[in-house]
Formats: sequence, C-alpha cells, structure tokens
Amino acid sequence: MVSPKLKIGCAGLGRMGKRHAINFLERTPRAELVAASTPDDAEFKWGKIHLEPYGVKLYKDYDQMLKQEGLQAVVIASVTTVHAEQAIKAVNANLHVLCEKPLSTSVEISQSVVDAAKKKPKLKVMCGFSRRFDASYRDAWSKMDSGLIGRPSVFRSQTCDKLDPSGFFVAYAEFSGGIFVDCSIHDIDLALWFFGQNSRVKSVVASGITAVEPDLQKHNDADNGVGIVEFYGGQMAYLYCSRMMAAGQEDTTEVIGTEGKLSVNANPQANLVTIHDPAGIRREAGAHYYDRFEQAFIKEANEFTACCLDDLKLPMKLSGAVQAVKIGCALQESLNTGHKIWFDEVGQRVERATL
Amino acid sequence: MVSPKLKIGCAGLGRMGKRHAINFLERTPRAELVAASTPDDAEFKWGKIHLEPYGVKLYKDYDQMLKQEGLQAVVIASVTTVHAEQAIKAVNANLHVLCEKPLSTSVEISQSVVDAAKKKPKLKVMCGFSRRFDASYRDAWSKMDSGLIGRPSVFRSQTCDKLDPSGFFVAYAEFSGGIFVDCSIHDIDLALWFFGQNSRVKSVVASGITAVEPDLQKHNDADNGVGIVEFYGGQMAYLYCSRMMAAGQEDTTEVIGTEGKLSVNANPQANLVTIHDPAGIRREAGAHYYDRFEQAFIKEANEFTACCLDDLKLPMKLSGAVQAVKIGCALQESLNTGHKIWFDEVGQRVERATL
Amino acid sequence: MVSPKLKIGCAGLGRMGKRHAINFLERTPRAELVAASTPDDAEFKWGKIHLEPYGVKLYKDYDQMLKQEGLQAVVIASVTTVHAEQAIKAVNANLHVLCEKPLSTSVEISQSVVDAAKKKPKLKVMCGFSRRFDASYRDAWSKMDSGLIGRPSVFRSQTCDKLDPSGFFVAYAEFSGGIFVDCSIHDIDLALWFFGQNSRVKSVVASGITAVEPDLQKHNDADNGVGIVEFYGGQMAYLYCSRMMAAGQEDTTEVIGTEGKLSVNANPQANLVTIHDPAGIRREAGAHYYDRFEQAFIKEANEFTACCLDDLKLPMKLSGAVQAVKIGCALQESLNTGHKIWFDEVGQRVERATL
Amino acid sequence: MVSPKLKIGCAGLGRMGKRHAINFLERTPRAELVAASTPDDAEFKWGKIHLEPYGVKLYKDYDQMLKQEGLQAVVIASVTTVHAEQAIKAVNANLHVLCEKPLSTSVEISQSVVDAAKKKPKLKVMCGFSRRFDASYRDAWSKMDSGLIGRPSVFRSQTCDKLDPSGFFVAYAEFSGGIFVDCSIHDIDLALWFFGQNSRVKSVVASGITAVEPDLQKHNDADNGVGIVEFYGGQMAYLYCSRMMAAGQEDTTEVIGTEGKLSVNANPQANLVTIHDPAGIRREAGAHYYDRFEQAFIKEANEFTACCLDDLKLPMKLSGAVQAVKIGCALQESLNTGHKIWFDEVGQRVERATL
Repeated sequence: MVSPKLKIGCAGLGRMGKRHAINFLERTPRAELVAASTPDDAEFKWGKIHLEPYGVKLYKDYDQMLKQEGLQAVVIASVTTVHAEQAIKAVNANLHVLCEKPLSTSVEISQSVVDAAKKKPKLKVMCGFSRRFDASYRDAWSKMDSGLIGRPSVFRSQTCDKLDPSGFFVAYAEFSGGIFVDCSIHDIDLALWFFGQNSRVKSVVASGITAVEPDLQKHNDADNGVGIVEFYGGQMAYLYCSRMMAAGQEDTTEVIGTEGKLSVNANPQANLVTIHDPAGIRREAGAHYYDRFEQAFIKEANEFTACCLDDLKLPMKLSGAVQAVKIGCALQESLNTGHKIWFDEVGQRVERATL
Repeated sequence: MVSPKLKIGCAGLGRMGKRHAINFLERTPRAELVAASTPDDAEFKWGKIHLEPYGVKLYKDYDQMLKQEGLQAVVIASVTTVHAEQAIKAVNANLHVLCEKPLSTSVEISQSVVDAAKKKPKLKVMCGFSRRFDASYRDAWSKMDSGLIGRPSVFRSQTCDKLDPSGFFVAYAEFSGGIFVDCSIHDIDLALWFFGQNSRVKSVVASGITAVEPDLQKHNDADNGVGIVEFYGGQMAYLYCSRMMAAGQEDTTEVIGTEGKLSVNANPQANLVTIHDPAGIRREAGAHYYDRFEQAFIKEANEFTACCLDDLKLPMKLSGAVQAVKIGCALQESLNTGHKIWFDEVGQRVERATL
Repeated sequence: MVSPKLKIGCAGLGRMGKRHAINFLERTPRAELVAASTPDDAEFKWGKIHLEPYGVKLYKDYDQMLKQEGLQAVVIASVTTVHAEQAIKAVNANLHVLCEKPLSTSVEISQSVVDAAKKKPKLKVMCGFSRRFDASYRDAWSKMDSGLIGRPSVFRSQTCDKLDPSGFFVAYAEFSGGIFVDCSIHDIDLALWFFGQNSRVKSVVASGITAVEPDLQKHNDADNGVGIVEFYGGQMAYLYCSRMMAAGQEDTTEVIGTEGKLSVNANPQANLVTIHDPAGIRREAGAHYYDRFEQAFIKEANEFTACCLDDLKLPMKLSGAVQAVKIGCALQESLNTGHKIWFDEVGQRVERATL
Repeated sequence: MVSPKLKIGCAGLGRMGKRHAINFLERTPRAELVAASTPDDAEFKWGKIHLEPYGVKLYKDYDQMLKQEGLQAVVIASVTTVHAEQAIKAVNANLHVLCEKPLSTSVEISQSVVDAAKKKPKLKVMCGFSRRFDASYRDAWSKMDSGLIGRPSVFRSQTCDKLDPSGFFVAYAEFSGGIFVDCSIHDIDLALWFFGQNSRVKSVVASGITAVEPDLQKHNDADNGVGIVEFYGGQMAYLYCSRMMAAGQEDTTEVIGTEGKLSVNANPQANLVTIHDPAGIRREAGAHYYDRFEQAFIKEANEFTACCLDDLKLPMKLSGAVQAVKIGCALQESLNTGHKIWFDEVGQRVERATL
C-alpha cells in the first residue's frame, strides 16, 4: 500500500508563489497541491488557469484556506510583511509550514514564529533557505564535514543580482528590509551552516554605496554592500551583496579552512556552452536567482514533504532563521550608521566586546 | 477542463528502463505510467516494489502489455537486440513509440522500423537521442542557427565513458554493435543535427586500440576509437569514443564555423564545487552518462508526451536514426578492416567517390 | 650610435635582492648591473659567485657602493627597515631609485622619502609595486579606462600566500608591519590605481584571526585578515589577506563597475596543464608570489631603466606609496583595536566622519 | 673566470628572424649575436636600425656571414625553402645550427641535413620545435613520464591559427608544404615526443576542406584539416589544423593514458583577465603563435646556447625532425588523394599493412 500524499496549500501566487505552486503540483510526487490563496486579482486569475483545472481550490482569503478539510501543510510565499503572521496562523491551525525567507525583517517578529512553533513540537516548521538544498552546496558541506579542508575559518560569500535597469529594486526596497536582509541573508545562513548552527556572532560592520540607484537612499538602502561578520571562536565571514552585475546573477561562496578551500559557483554559467567569437571566449551567466537554484527549490519541496509525511528531522533549525535575520539587520544598521556593532557571548548587543 | 494524461507503458526495467519508468511516473506531469514489462525476474521484482503500488500494471510479456486497455504509448528501454521488433509491434498496435537508441545495430533492421512507422503517419515514433533535449546542446544549436558562427564546417565530438575496471564493457560489447555504434552514435546524431538532417555522408574512416581491455578484440571492438566522417558539401566531423576516462564521463562537442565556434561541455564538471588542496585546484567530473543528461531525459519524456497528446511534430525525424546507425556501422567496419569507406551522393557504398 | 646603458647598483641580495640583481644583469638590455651591496656574509658569497664574474663590484657597505664612480641608479631590495634610509641616501647622492615596497612600515618615514625626492625633481624615484607592471593588470586597467565597465565602484582584491608550515611568517611578522602592510599593500596600491591616485580614504575597518599560527598574536598580527576601505565619492574596496592557502598563491582582483566587471587571476594556475585523474580534473597553482609576477618584475626593471635613460615620466607617483602605507597601517591598527578608523576629506584622522 | 659567450649569427630577418635575432641579442645572456644576413632590402634596413648599433655585422649574403671570424653558431630563420641548404652549409663550416622548423617540406632533403650533421658529431644541430621548450608541455611530459597517467595511448592535438582575412595564407601556401606540414608538424613532433622518439608510424589518413579560402585548392591545400596517425604498438594520434579560429590562436593538446589524461592549453587565454559584461563572461585569446610561445622561444635560445657552450646533449634528436616531415607530408598527400597511407614496421610505404 502506498502512503497517502501530503495535502498542501500555497499562500501567495506572486513570482515565487507561482513557482512553489507548480513545484508542489507537478514536481513533488509525494505531495498534492490542494489549495492556494492570494488577495491579488491577477494572481488569482493565474490560479484559475494553471491550478484550478488540476483540482486546486482557490481562495482570496488565507484564513479561509487554512480551514480547508484535510489540509496538512502550507507553503508561504506571500509578501515578506505577512510571512510571520501567516506562519503563526498555520501553526495554530496545526499545519506544517514551509515559509519563504526571511521569516520577517524584524528579529522580534521572526522570534515569535519560533515561539509559536515550539508549542507544537510535532509540526514541521521550516524557513526555506533554498541553498541548503542545492547539490553543490551540499557536496561542499559534506566535503568540509569529512575534514577535507581542516577547520573552516574564513567564509566569503556573495549574493549579487543582475542589473535591472527598470528601477524595480527601488520600490522593492521599501519592504525588503534592505539589501543585507534581502540578499545577504542567504550568505549569512550559509555561514551559520558551514561554521555550525551554534556559532555566536561577535561583531558586524558594513559599508554600502548607491552606484546605479541613488533613489535607494530614501529607503536607507544601497545597491552594493560589503560587510564583515566576526564570530566568537576565531572565525569570520565577509560578504558582498549587489544589484549591479552586468553579466548575470553571481552567487559565489568560498569556505577557507586550515588545510584547503571549497568554492561554490566560482565561475557562474548559464549552461555548458562556450562561445568563441572575435570578442574572445565566453559563456553566458544565468539572469536570475531561480535560474541558478531551480533544482534546489524542487529538492526543498520534496524533502519538506518527506519530513512531514515520515516525521523526519528537518535539515535545519528554525531558530537559525532568527539568527540570520538578526545578523542581516545588524549589517543593514551598520551600513546606515557607519557604526560597528558588537554582541556579547550570549548574543546581547554591547557597547564593545572584549577583544 | 484538463486534457487527459498520456497512458504509457515501459518495456524493459534495466538500468535505463528504471529511469524511464520513474521519469514517466513522477516527473512527466502530463503522462501516466500505467504498465511496464520485463522478462527478467530481478527487474520484475523491482517493479513490484517501485511501480505497482502506484497503479502500474506489470507484465512478464511485452506482447501482453501491448494489449492493455487504454494504453496509448510505449517507451522501449529493453536490450538493443529487441528494440526494433518491439517498436514495430507497438506501431502495429497503434501505439506511439519512444525507443531508446539505437533502433538496431543493423541498418536494415533500423530501416524496418522507419518503414513500419511510415504506414501509421498519425503515430509519433521517435528514437531517443537524449542530447537533442539537453539545454546546452539546444542553446548551442540556436546560437548556430541564428548565424552566430557563420557556416558550420568542422564538428568535433566525443562520447567517453569513465573507466570501469569491472570488465562490464567486454561482455556488453557482444551485443552493443561496437563502440562507434554504442557511443559515437550520439555524436553522429549531433553532427546530423548541427550540419542538417539532409547531410549526405561521403566517406568514413576509423582507427581503434584496446588500451585497457584487450578482450574486446574478440568482439571486434576497441576501448578507444577515433574516426573521420566527410560529408558532401565541404563539411567534416571527427569523433573520439573511449571507455577509459579516469576522471569521469567526458562528452564534449565543438561546432566550428567560418565565423566562430561553439563548445558544449568543454570542461566536464559534476557540479559547481571547486576544491583547493595541496594537490591543486580541482573539480570532480560526473561518473556516468546519466549524471550529465538526467534533465535531458526528463525533458525528452515531457516533450514526447506533449507531441503525442497535442499531435505536435517531433523534434527530429526517425529516418535520421537510420542514418546515424549507417555511419556508426561504417565507422565500426573501418575500425576493423582498416579501410576507408566511401558513399556516393545518394548514399550507396562505392569503391571510391570522386574527390 | 647606441645610447649608453644605465649603471645600476643593487642594495641587498636576499630573496628579492637576488632576483633584482639577476634581472638587471641579464634581462634588462639597457641596464648594466655594476655594483651590489649586502652586509650579510652568505649573500655576499652568493654575489661572489653569481655577480662578480660578470663585472659587478661587491660591497659590504651600502654607503661605499653609493660612491662608486659612474653609478647612476640603485635598486633597493634590502630589509624593509632600511628601505627609506637607503632611498634617501641614494637621492642625496643624485641617484635614481627603484625601492622595493613598502617604503617603510611607518607613514612618517615613508613621507620622508617623498620629501627627499621632491628636492631632486630630475631623479626618478619609484616604489616598486610590481603588479603595476603585470600584463594582465595593465590590460584590465586599460579596459576600465576605455569605459568598458562604466564607473568603477567596488574593488575586491586579495593577496594570499601559500601555507608555509615552517613558521617563517611568525619571525617575519616582527618587522613586516603586519599582514595588511606586508600583503594588502599591493591590493591597496591597486585600489588607488584603479580608483584613481587622488582617491581619498574615508574609513577603514578590519578583522583578523590566527587560524594556523597563534604565535603571530605576539607581534599583533594575524594569518588571515579582511578589511573594508571606504573612499570619498562613493567607492569602496574590500580586501582579504592570508598566509593559509593550501593550493598555492592566490592573488585575485575584481573591479566592479556600473556596467561590467573585470577580474584578474580569478582562477589561479601555475601553467596551462590540466590533469585528469580519478580525483577529478585539476590544475596546479603557483607556490609563490614570484611565480605569478616574475615577468612583471622584469618589465619593472626595463621600464624603470627607460625612464631614467630617456627622462620619461614614471608610471606612478611616489606619494601614492605613502598613501598605501597609511591605509595599510590603519587597517592593521583596526585589526588590533577592533575600531573603525575615520579620515576627513583632507586625510586627517577624525573621531567620526559625516556620513 | 666567466666562460665566453656563444657567438651566433642569424640567417633571415623576416617575421621569425627578427624575433630570433632580438632573443639572442637581448634575452640570451650567454650568447652574443654577432652577425645577421638577409637578401631582403627591407629586412636589411631593419637590421641597420635594430642590430648594427649593438655590434651585429650585417650581410646580404648568407655565405659571407658564415666566414665571419669567430662565428660559432647560426640560427636559421629564413624561408623554408632554403632551411636545409643553409643548415648543411653551416655544418660544413663547422658551426652549430638551430634551424626553424621544418628542415624542409621534402623528406629526402630533410634527411640530407641529418646526414650532413652525422659527419660532424661534435656540432649541435637542432630543429627548433618551440613547444619542446614550453613550460606547460614540459610539465605535462614530466608528469606523464612519472607515470601519472599510466601508458599514454591516445594523443589529440591541434594547431589552429586565428582567421586572417587578408588572404595571406593563400600566397603562403605555395611554399609552406601544406597545412599539415606547416601547422600539424608541431603536433606530430609532440606525438613523437610523448609517445617516444622511436614510435613507428603505421598509417595516416586525412581529410580537409576549404571553408574560408577556396583559393587554397590551387596549391593543393585546405584551411581545415583533420587526420589520424596510427603507430605500431597500439597508440594513435588524431590531429586538427585550421586557419579559421575566430577568437584567436588555439593550440591544444591532450595525452590520454590508461590511468589519466593531461591537457595543455585546453582553454586558450591571452592573459589572466576575465571580462563580465552583458554578453557574458569572457576572456580574450592570443592572436598569434608567438603570443603563446614567446617564452618558449627564449628558453630555446638559452638552452641551445648552453648545449653548444657546455657540450650538452640536445633535448631532442635531429632525426625526429625528418620523421615529423615524413608524417606531415603523408597526411598532406592523404588530404589530397583521399587515400589512407600505410607504412611497414621499418618505415617503408606499403600497399597495406597487416592489421
């Protein structure tokens, strides 16, 4: 007898919501997309065409969807500002939750999701850091874990978007939490993964410029930022985030250990084609984050489903998502104030840590 | 209303059969795997565990499967020696056919499949040259087709397997048709695709050695072969096939035109990880053909399904598969006799073509 | 009639001194190495064997060498602590000077060389930042200068030495000025070159760890450091220096502009060989700085010679070398104090610049 | 006491002659360029400006130069048609000889140089296959020689020039001996080096096209050629030569062994710069053969000089140069006749070798 499928609903049918919906509908054999909700008319209409014919019930109201008979889980891909609220509601309705990153742009609100989840220890509540499901990052992590590079000590990582001259990112910055919360959060999560989930941040400092989008300044944001994160115990990460890559998305990570180094995506490439022409020898780079991580999102959907159905341990702790927001917010604050920000060994902000 | 799914059966549950079965079961949303057949006990048992619980009916006998009510198509992944026979039976049973390459190791038998298919013009009958569905090859083809490299003139391609010290390839060579028919057939098909399906072969010549598996000689085979294929109209291809790659599978192609060059997979890589250690800076290579082309096989299943359901034109002609076998067999013959083999402009073997 | 050759003496015959001596002896056609000085017995002996037979007069005492009849120039490759003193003496003796970097580990002493040089405007006095003579850096600079990447905005650069388990770097740290002054000085000089010699530093901040050489702490040094340098006008550099590279020397630079990016040495390589073996596909990396920059040093010797003989403008200003030391020292101070350090628009340290 | 320098004369001051002259003048510390000869007025004038002021005596007549008092060696870089004659004259005048490749486009004439040299065993007579002095080829050879890739079995090599739309290569083809003798001779020499100087050719076969320069046909030449060379003992080489590379010179070699593979220049590059722009991520390729091999030519001059002065064994046998011409001519013949050409185990042409 085959085990029944996980009945899941999708909150939000925007750019990422559509992808999650389709992934659960078509590319997650053990899941069954049974519902989707969106308050947006255009998105609702998209659902009418692409989801409803396959048995997916559509809702304008998220709360109504939660009441659907037999629903077991939700994937939350709505606007960041409602992530936490929707996640908590789902938890309270006894549903498993896969929530897009970040839980919130506020540390406190992020923590409230963790608090809610703690009360329902049987539920699987996960913040979807997609790179954790990427085959290359996993391979690098395994190699590090096997001791190949000695003790990981320095971490360099960047999340750099292709230049979008439409001005999209200016409007987006109003609610994104800033470039360190929106982009570098991935790199921070990776640092916590590679250095260990129990790593304790000691200080952060960041700088930023607006090279192509001066209007970002009105949202206290930048289009290029660099930051340093020190951890207690002699490890450090340095990060770069940008909205200005000419050739395409460039998400590169290096983990430097006492005996070796591992890189992921040191040479971005859209595919395996090389072009020789009078301008030289080139390859194209993927334009978008999803070009690089599509397979990781599919893996995420499948693994989350398996964890729910088989009551397996999730591949990462929810509390790490709060830690990542905390570091991201501190970097963003440092970018804006120019100050270096210090934390003591239990994570409290202090005027100055002992060196 | 959603259109019904394509009901498909899978013939053979060996290495490739299992993959096709799972791909149609889980990764082809518009298809429904409803049947599978294999005369092999171990394979049948595998089907009991992995297919039957999901509603797939199992058969020991291929002919019985063809009679299953509602069956619309078959994917043939059995041993090469029965490809043609099974394909013809399916055609005669009014089923669409996706047949693993090659149709046969014999040109005549391959042609008999084409002849059978011609009588049922409504059926979709396709020989599965997986690389035609690979995103990188398609991108290269589009770029060539757009004129980026001028007139394609020289084609270099290789299909090179990772060294398998188990001796597997010696036994396998008894029925494979030889390394040019088994491996280079992919490169030949690519040459016909990039140079145009109407390219007419003018001559072939090949050489081979047995560097690691001297026992291959008893099957008139080699573990490394190189060949040259001349086409009428001033184009030529040179090919390399091998069973001896130390680092992993190496399937590389170059299309050299009058104004540029396109390469596919010039630098094989298992993933995006780079390893720095005292031995240098390295990446790993995929071990197997399927590591490289898994996504292409999924694409193939989905596109074949769409062609059947929506009565679309297949992306390649079945007759090309005969042409590929013809060139592959001639190369294998040249490898064994040392002779250069000539064809006239209508494809007949001749003593010597006019230069 | 052929113009006479530049008569040059070499101060110091240590690791770099030997190289400079040989380069001026054998690989600088328009120069004639006529003298060399070293207080060290082993180095003197080396000179007896490798220089004296070719007409090079040897001195134990630098001051004596300066008096040699006909001497026109000196290359200073002695220990860092005497760079400035020797340079000033040479200038006062009316000799052209090519001085190894840094002029000094002290900003004030570095400035004293500039002051001395200013009084002899006919003399060519250059601090040898070798990368300025490297063909790849020059090509990148020209491409940037031609507008290829728009406005250069973010600069990433690293100088990372191969791990030397002998403990050499601990002893070396006593006089090196620290890792930012010893290694990153190159990257700082490059930043000043690519952003423009008139760039004004706004702030620096740095962090460091001792991952492999805890004994470095007694010299207030680290084996891995990261730093951020902000410039007035909306440009920033982020730097990495390390003594811990497993695979070899890794000196990589990226210049990121509003319309493109230029990298130099993104994929370090000892030569053009690729090795395929069961561990994967790898290349080796050069072990030492000189492996990477040997041709640049030769170019430097030849261009310096031409500037002296033909009274040409040097490719960079001497004052830039002071600026580089100033930034390097500030980074080293920040590494040790944890403080971010601010400068006003005329280069004075301030408590805090206006954002 | 320092040993005296090798007094050398340069025959020919064309493209390669100028380079050899300058290399011996400026970049070969143990040699002294004392003479140069050319019958060409423009070249002679160049010598007046660039050589004579440095003490180089100029001759219009090669024979006169040979009589110059104290001359010890000649480097022959005149037109291919006089290579052999000039080499023999020099040998007869008791001079060491470094002769540009090929000795001749005729096997017999090439052999006559070997015969002449045999009579003067004390003289160093070398055909300048520059790649033998290239650091990457040498590193690959050493690695192979150390057993890293097991038994070398398959050799792929190409010499491919950048497209020159001026038509230069059509005129050049009249005397070049054809593309296999002019370009592939390098690859053939490499095959003989990597497979061992005693390798015995068993068969050759080649094909060619004129994709961009149809006028080459009047000189029985092609602008793209591919060939297969079989050796007795189970080794084979396959070669590609072209005048049609869009991006730049592409000289790539692979040596495939039973346990690994070594590549040289698998990814051509002009320098270490990578360019990111909206068209993708690219590097430039060198335009000319000399861009790739300049350092090898310098090494060649220095090693040849050392062999002459110190009576050392040359790094390769002169007879190999005849072998290379023999294989190159056979490939060119096969290109033109379409025939496969066979040799017996002692190197005689036969109708057909036993397989």
